[in-house]
Amino acid sequence: MTTQQLVQEIKRKRSFLCIGLDVDLNKIPQHLLEEEDPIFAFNKTIIDATHHLAVAYKPNLAFYEAYGIKGLKALGKTIDYLNKNHPEIFTIADAKRGDIGNTSGMYAKAFFEDLNFDSVTVAPYMGKDSVEPFLAYEDKHTILLALTSNAGAFDFQTEKIDGEELYKKVLKVSKSWVNGQNLMYVVGATKAEFLADIRNIVPESFLLVPGVGAQGGSLEEVCKFGMNRNVGLLVNSARGIIYASGGVDFAEAAAAKAKELQEQMAAFL
Amino acid sequence: MTTQQLVQEIKRKRSFLCIGLDVDLNKIPQHLLEEEDPIFAFNKTIIDATHHLAVAYKPNLAFYEAYGIKGLKALGKTIDYLNKNHPEIFTIADAKRGDIGNTSGMYAKAFFEDLNFDSVTVAPYMGKDSVEPFLAYEDKHTILLALTSNAGAFDFQTEKIDGEELYKKVLKVSKSWVNGQNLMYVVGATKAEFLADIRNIVPESFLLVPGVGAQGGSLEEVCKFGMNRNVGLLVNSARGIIYASGGVDFAEAAAAKAKELQEQMAAFL
Repeated sequence: MTTQQLVQEIKRKRSFLCIGLDVDLNKIPQHLLEEEDPIFAFNKTIIDATHHLAVAYKPNLAFYEAYGIKGLKALGKTIDYLNKNHPEIFTIADAKRGDIGNTSGMYAKAFFEDLNFDSVTVAPYMGKDSVEPFLAYEDKHTILLALTSNAGAFDFQTEKIDGEELYKKVLKVSKSWVNGQNLMYVVGATKAEFLADIRNIVPESFLLVPGVGAQGGSLEEVCKFGMNRNVGLLVNSARGIIYASGGVDFAEAAAAKAKELQEQMAAFL
Repeated sequence: MTTQQLVQEIKRKRSFLCIGLDVDLNKIPQHLLEEEDPIFAFNKTIIDATHHLAVAYKPNLAFYEAYGIKGLKALGKTIDYLNKNHPEIFTIADAKRGDIGNTSGMYAKAFFEDLNFDSVTVAPYMGKDSVEPFLAYEDKHTILLALTSNAGAFDFQTEKIDGEELYKKVLKVSKSWVNGQNLMYVVGATKAEFLADIRNIVPESFLLVPGVGAQGGSLEEVCKFGMNRNVGLLVNSARGIIYASGGVDFAEAAAAKAKELQEQMAAFL
């Protein structure tokens, strides 16, 4: 998918909502455990109930790997279901990968070719040659961790190098990599006050913003400081939507929560 | 496995060799492609031929994920084979994971409980709460990226924070985390001259050292600057051993290369 197609979809749906498909079998409605594939059954129902409100879905790989082969099969079925039924929806493999060049190339193959995700999240610690193999794919998107939503973001990301925080260095340096102008970045909503500075460095880039809702970030602040002329934002919500109800009405509850967020977003567009 | 058991095994075998099981179906002997599971067949043959010379095996997850479910089944069979037949051998899931706390906990479950690896490599960028869920497991080991073997290591890892390189900050800060004294660290052999400084900061920690051989690192330098009173080193070689021959004699060729490295190591012990 091209960035232009993503922007069109955002304008059409009046939404920049990304729904995190972080499936925990201890949290899904217990009647689903009788299904042959409870993880996929849950995801399919959530997607069917919310696809008109969201422009992106983001499974976090950890939740699938924790269930072994069974989890990875469910992930495969989920991305296939999305690609087949909703090809206009942007898909994000939240994997936070990164390794030496030839090895990152294998991860890129796994996520972009085999699973056919539109994008993957990548960690910047190992530098240029760990990220460029992902950037080599045309019309696929690499979303680099910049300033994350957790408390540990303050351990290294905000430490200063030559008077400037590491995450700013990551933003600046990564722009110079081959196809670096196509990068998107993870910026946590819990640190919305940093968004103005970030927009100065990467005015055109899309930002994937986790941390609204359960983690305490404010949508209003994110929009105020983070939006650009192409909207330039994907705001993720996972638990707040997918676990809005633990009962048989979980799909309706998820749709209601997604609708609430979509309407808030529409007001900022 | 405890660190003490690893040290005993190093002394018994007079080896601190770790063999990287980075299986690429384009590089393995072509007659193996007729096997039902070529990846596992290759790994099993390499393990059978080298287990008396190595103290650790390290599959890099990217190579398995690149083959989808088939690759991950082969990984499962490989770790099961090692745990059943060679429980004294240290196993490393080279996964370079790291995410917000509850999500890192899911990765820890995947690698430590389901797959039953002894250790996993973890990226430090997201800080304390992304690493501590791994450290919570007793007699499991978390191997934190410090200074990697690739060119991109110089993009951020060696940048100075308050006059000190980021990787040194990672070493110092991580020691203070809950169970941080149990951390091991990845330090590339291609940067052996940095090992003296690293040993000053983490004198007791085990270092996993990739980059000897194919990437150009020197075993002599690694030993000179990196060894401590418990040896404290695991030196990884992958391509140089497992692809020593692409023919039907690949197992013998791998054993010969491993033996050569083991003998060089014994001379430094």
